[in-house]
Amino acid sequence: MRDSSQVFLGLDFGTESVRALLVNGGGEELASAVVPFEHGQIIDRLPNSPRPLPPAYALQHPSDWIEAAAKATNTAKRKAKIDAAMIVGVGVDFTSCTMLPTKADGTPLCLLSEFADEPLAWPKLWKHHGAQKQTDRINAVARAREETFLKRYGGTIGLEWFFPKMLETLEGAPKAYQAADVWLEAGDWFVWQLVGGPASELPRSTCQAGYKGMWNATDGYPSEDYLRAVNPKFATVVRDKLPGRLVAPGVAAGELLPSQAKRFGLRAGTPVSAAIIDAHAGVPGAGASTPGTLVMVMGTSSCHMINATEDRNVAGVAGVVKDGILPGFFGYETGQAAVGDAFDWLRKLTGNSDLRQLGLEAANIPPGAEGVLCVDWFNGCRTPLMDGKLCGAFAGLTLHHRPAHLYRALLEASAFGVRWIVEVLREGGVPVKKFIATGGLPHHNPLVVQVYADVLGEPIMVHPCKHGPALGAAILGALAANAFSSPAAAMRAMSVPKPGTATIYKPNRDARKTYEALYADYRKFGGFLNSQSS
Amino acid sequence: MRDSSQVFLGLDFGTESVRALLVNGGGEELASAVVPFEHGQIIDRLPNSPRPLPPAYALQHPSDWIEAAAKATNTAKRKAKIDAAMIVGVGVDFTSCTMLPTKADGTPLCLLSEFADEPLAWPKLWKHHGAQKQTDRINAVARAREETFLKRYGGTIGLEWFFPKMLETLEGAPKAYQAADVWLEAGDWFVWQLVGGPASELPRSTCQAGYKGMWNATDGYPSEDYLRAVNPKFATVVRDKLPGRLVAPGVAAGELLPSQAKRFGLRAGTPVSAAIIDAHAGVPGAGASTPGTLVMVMGTSSCHMINATEDRNVAGVAGVVKDGILPGFFGYETGQAAVGDAFDWLRKLTGNSDLRQLGLEAANIPPGAEGVLCVDWFNGCRTPLMDGKLCGAFAGLTLHHRPAHLYRALLEASAFGVRWIVEVLREGGVPVKKFIATGGLPHHNPLVVQVYADVLGEPIMVHPCKHGPALGAAILGALAANAFSSPAAAMRAMSVPKPGTATIYKPNRDARKTYEALYADYRKFGGFLNSQSS
Repeated sequence: MRDSSQVFLGLDFGTESVRALLVNGGGEELASAVVPFEHGQIIDRLPNSPRPLPPAYALQHPSDWIEAAAKATNTAKRKAKIDAAMIVGVGVDFTSCTMLPTKADGTPLCLLSEFADEPLAWPKLWKHHGAQKQTDRINAVARAREETFLKRYGGTIGLEWFFPKMLETLEGAPKAYQAADVWLEAGDWFVWQLVGGPASELPRSTCQAGYKGMWNATDGYPSEDYLRAVNPKFATVVRDKLPGRLVAPGVAAGELLPSQAKRFGLRAGTPVSAAIIDAHAGVPGAGASTPGTLVMVMGTSSCHMINATEDRNVAGVAGVVKDGILPGFFGYETGQAAVGDAFDWLRKLTGNSDLRQLGLEAANIPPGAEGVLCVDWFNGCRTPLMDGKLCGAFAGLTLHHRPAHLYRALLEASAFGVRWIVEVLREGGVPVKKFIATGGLPHHNPLVVQVYADVLGEPIMVHPCKHGPALGAAILGALAANAFSSPAAAMRAMSVPKPGTATIYKPNRDARKTYEALYADYRKFGGFLNSQSS
Repeated sequence: MRDSSQVFLGLDFGTESVRALLVNGGGEELASAVVPFEHGQIIDRLPNSPRPLPPAYALQHPSDWIEAAAKATNTAKRKAKIDAAMIVGVGVDFTSCTMLPTKADGTPLCLLSEFADEPLAWPKLWKHHGAQKQTDRINAVARAREETFLKRYGGTIGLEWFFPKMLETLEGAPKAYQAADVWLEAGDWFVWQLVGGPASELPRSTCQAGYKGMWNATDGYPSEDYLRAVNPKFATVVRDKLPGRLVAPGVAAGELLPSQAKRFGLRAGTPVSAAIIDAHAGVPGAGASTPGTLVMVMGTSSCHMINATEDRNVAGVAGVVKDGILPGFFGYETGQAAVGDAFDWLRKLTGNSDLRQLGLEAANIPPGAEGVLCVDWFNGCRTPLMDGKLCGAFAGLTLHHRPAHLYRALLEASAFGVRWIVEVLREGGVPVKKFIATGGLPHHNPLVVQVYADVLGEPIMVHPCKHGPALGAAILGALAANAFSSPAAAMRAMSVPKPGTATIYKPNRDARKTYEALYADYRKFGGFLNSQSS
C-alpha cells in the first residue's frame, strides 16, 4: 500500500503566509517552507493609495498567493533534494471565506486599472467585517421566510461568509459587482489558476461552498425568490456570477498547467485536488479517518470538527455539509472564537512577557482556580450561541487572586466551552467518541490540553505533526492522484500517528468531579450574560 | 470664640502606626508626627515564639500603643516648639474593634508570663478573623430569638466585632478567658491608661460600644438569656467582664495622670476625651457639623458616615448609634470593604508599578469603560448586603480592552456602590444632602472623586486636611476641655474649610445620564452574583 517513493505537496494558505509541505506516502515529512505574503493583510490602505480603508476592512492581494506559494514550493523542493517527477499530487487548503471577483478568464477585478482604487473589488479576507448590514438582512429575510438552509448553519448565517460579502459589493460598489463575471473562494481561484479551463468548468470546493456559501448537494444555492427578497438586484447572482462545477476535496480538480508547472518547479499534468478550508484540512491531517472523532484545531481561535454517518440539524453548530471534510461522511464544524487569542490578551493585560511562566503558576493552582470563574466569550460565542456581540467575564475575584488564577480560570472556561459543544453535538444525535488536539497551541501549551481532558473526562491525543492542515492538504493531493484505495487508507499510511509518537493526556478523576459542579456554574454565568446582552 | 493660643492633641491610631497632631483653636496645624508600632501587625508568630499563628489571626502588642503614642507626641511637640502648658485637651481615635483582655488593674493578660504564649490572650486587631464559628452562632441564635439589637446592625453581627472575639477566647482558650477581669476596646484601654482609676470606673466609648459592642443607650448590652443561648458559660459575661461606665466621644473621660503626663511631655490634669473609632473621627475632622452630610472616609476600605435627627433601622447599614459620632444625633455607619485596596490589587494584577499612569489612561476612556462592567466586592460587600463571602467580577470584556478599561470600570463600580448606599439610606428615611470626601485617597486620586460625583449626580467636596481623623480627635480633645460652646462651634472654628481651601468636584450632566443606565446593569449583575453565592 505504502509507496515512499511517491511524494505529495500540501499547500497551506494562512492569513499572513503560505506553507509548502512535501511528504511521502509513508507520512514522512521531507521538507517544509513558509513564505509570507508580500502585502500581508491589507488593512490600512490599498497598495499605491493614500486613502485609508474603513476599520472593518481586511483585504488581500491575489498575486501574493501565487508568488508566495511558488516560492515556498521551490524552496521545499530544494531542501528535500528531490526531482519534480517524484511529486505526484498537489493538495491545497485555504482560509475561508476569503473570496474575490474576477473576469471570465480568471483575472482578478482589482488587477484591472479601472478597479484598482475600489476596495470592494479586492479579495476580501475571511476576517473582513464590512458586511454587517447585509448579514443582518440575509438572516432576517431567511428567518421570515423560514428558509430550510438556516437549519444547516445552526440558525445563523455568518458575517464572514460568501453571500454577505458579495452583497456588500453589490450595494457598496455596484459597478464592480456588475463588472465581475465570477465570484469565488480564494482557494478555488488558486486551484483554477493551477489547472486552467473556462469559467463554466472552474472547480469549486464542496467544503467552502457548503460551509461558507450556503450551498448543499441536494438543494444547491439559495433560491432566486429568497435572494430577490434580500435585494431584487441579487436575485440572479447564482446564475450570473457563480459558474463552475462542485468538486469534493480529495477529488482531482484538474491537472497542473505547463506554465504553472514551470513556475512551481513541478511536473505538468500533476493532479491537483479541489481545495479545502484550512481548519478542515486538520481532520485528514490528524488521521481522523473514522466518524466520531472530534478534531480540535487549536490556535488563536479553535475549530472543532467531526465526521458522522448521521445527517442532523444541530442548533448552534456552524455548519453541517455532506462530503464537506471527507467523502462519505457528514462533516460538522463547530468553533470557539477566542482561544490562543484570549490567552495572549490575558498575558498582555497582566503585564506578562511570557505565557510559560503564567502556565507554571497556573498548574500549581487546584482545579477551580480558587474560586475564579471565567466565561470565555472575549470575541463572542461561536458554537453554540452564534453571537459575536457576547463578551467575556470573570467572577469570584478577591484581593488574593493573582494573574495565574485568572489564567487558570480562562483555560477552564475554554474547556467548559468545548464540553458544551460536545454536549450540543451528542444531544443533537452526533456521536462524539474520541478527541484529537492539533494546531500549534497544544504543542506549546500542555496545561490547556490537560485541563480539557479533565473537564471532558476523556483522554485527548495531541497529534505529533505540528502543521496538521498542510499534512491534510498533502493527503488530499495523494487522493487526487489515486495513490491510495480510500481516504482511510491514505490516513493510515500518512497521518495516523505511529505508535509512541502521539502524546495522550488522561483525565484526572478528582479534577473531573470538581469540574462537574463548576461547569454548571459556567453555564449559569453564561446564561446570565447572554440574557443581558443587547 | 477662637483662642489660637489653646492647642489640642489628636492621637490617631491606625493599623501600623499612630499619628500625633497638634492643632490650635483656629484649626491651624502646628505639627504632626507618625511613629510605627514596634511589632506592627502580629500575623506570623507571637514575639519570642517559634509557633506559627493560624492564618486568620492578626494581633497587636499593647505596649506598642503607649510607646509609639508618647514618642509621636513628644516629636510633634518638639516640632511645634510649644510648651506643655499650651496643650489643653487630648482626643483619641483608634481602629475598632481592636480589643484585649486585662486584669482588674488594667494589665494586659498577654504581658503575664502565664499567658504570653497564648495567642487568644493577646490584643486582637480589628482585622483578626478567628471568630467565624462564633460569629455564625451569635447571628443564628439572634435571628432565631428575633433579638431587637439585630435591627440596629442591618441584620448581621460582624465577624470583626467585640462579642465574637470574646467568645472565641472563651471557647478556644478558656483559662485565659477566665483569668481576664476586663475585656475592652484598645481605644478605651489606652484612655484608661492615661486617666487611671479603678476598673469599675473605666471609661468606655459609646461609639465603640454602640457600633462594635452590640450596646445601646436604651437597652444596654445583649441579655443574659440571649448570651446563655449562645453558650451557657457566656451568660454573665457582661456582669463579669465588662466593668466601667459609658462615655460619649467629646466628653472628658478623666484627667491625665502625672506619670503619663511625664511620659507624653504634657501637663498632668489635662482633660482626655473618651475614644472614638478612627473612621468616625473623620466626621468632626471633615467639619460635618450638621445632619445630612455623608462623610466618605476613603482609604484601603471606605467608611461612609452620616448624622441624622431620625432614628431609623435601615436594612444593611452597619450600625446606627445615638450619640455614636456626635452628641445629639443618631450616627449611621455604612461602608465598602475594598476601595483603595481593590485599586491597588488591580494595579498589581495588571503589572503596573503606578496607579497614576493607569488613571491618566482611564480618564481618557468615556463613562462606561467601553463596555466593561465591574462589581466591586473584592473583599465582600459591607453595605448593604453585609456579606463577606461575596466576590468581585468583571463582565463585558473583549480582546480590545486594556488594563485602563478595567481600572475605569472598577472606579465606576465603587461609585455605584456609594450610590446604592445613598439609596438605601434615603429609602430608609435618612436624608442625604451633601457629600464630603476625606481620607488619603481623594487627595491623590482625583479621578475617583470625579467619577463618584458623576455617578451620584451631586457635587463632592474634598476636605483640605489630609489627616481628617487626627483633626477630628483633636476637636474631641477641645470639646473635652470645654474650649467651645458646642461641637458645631468647635468644627466651625477648627475643621469647616476656610473659603477657597476645599476642592469641589461638580457632576458632569452627560456622564450622569450614561451612568443612570449602567447603574441598573451593576445592580442586575450584583443581583446575579449574590444569588449564586453560597
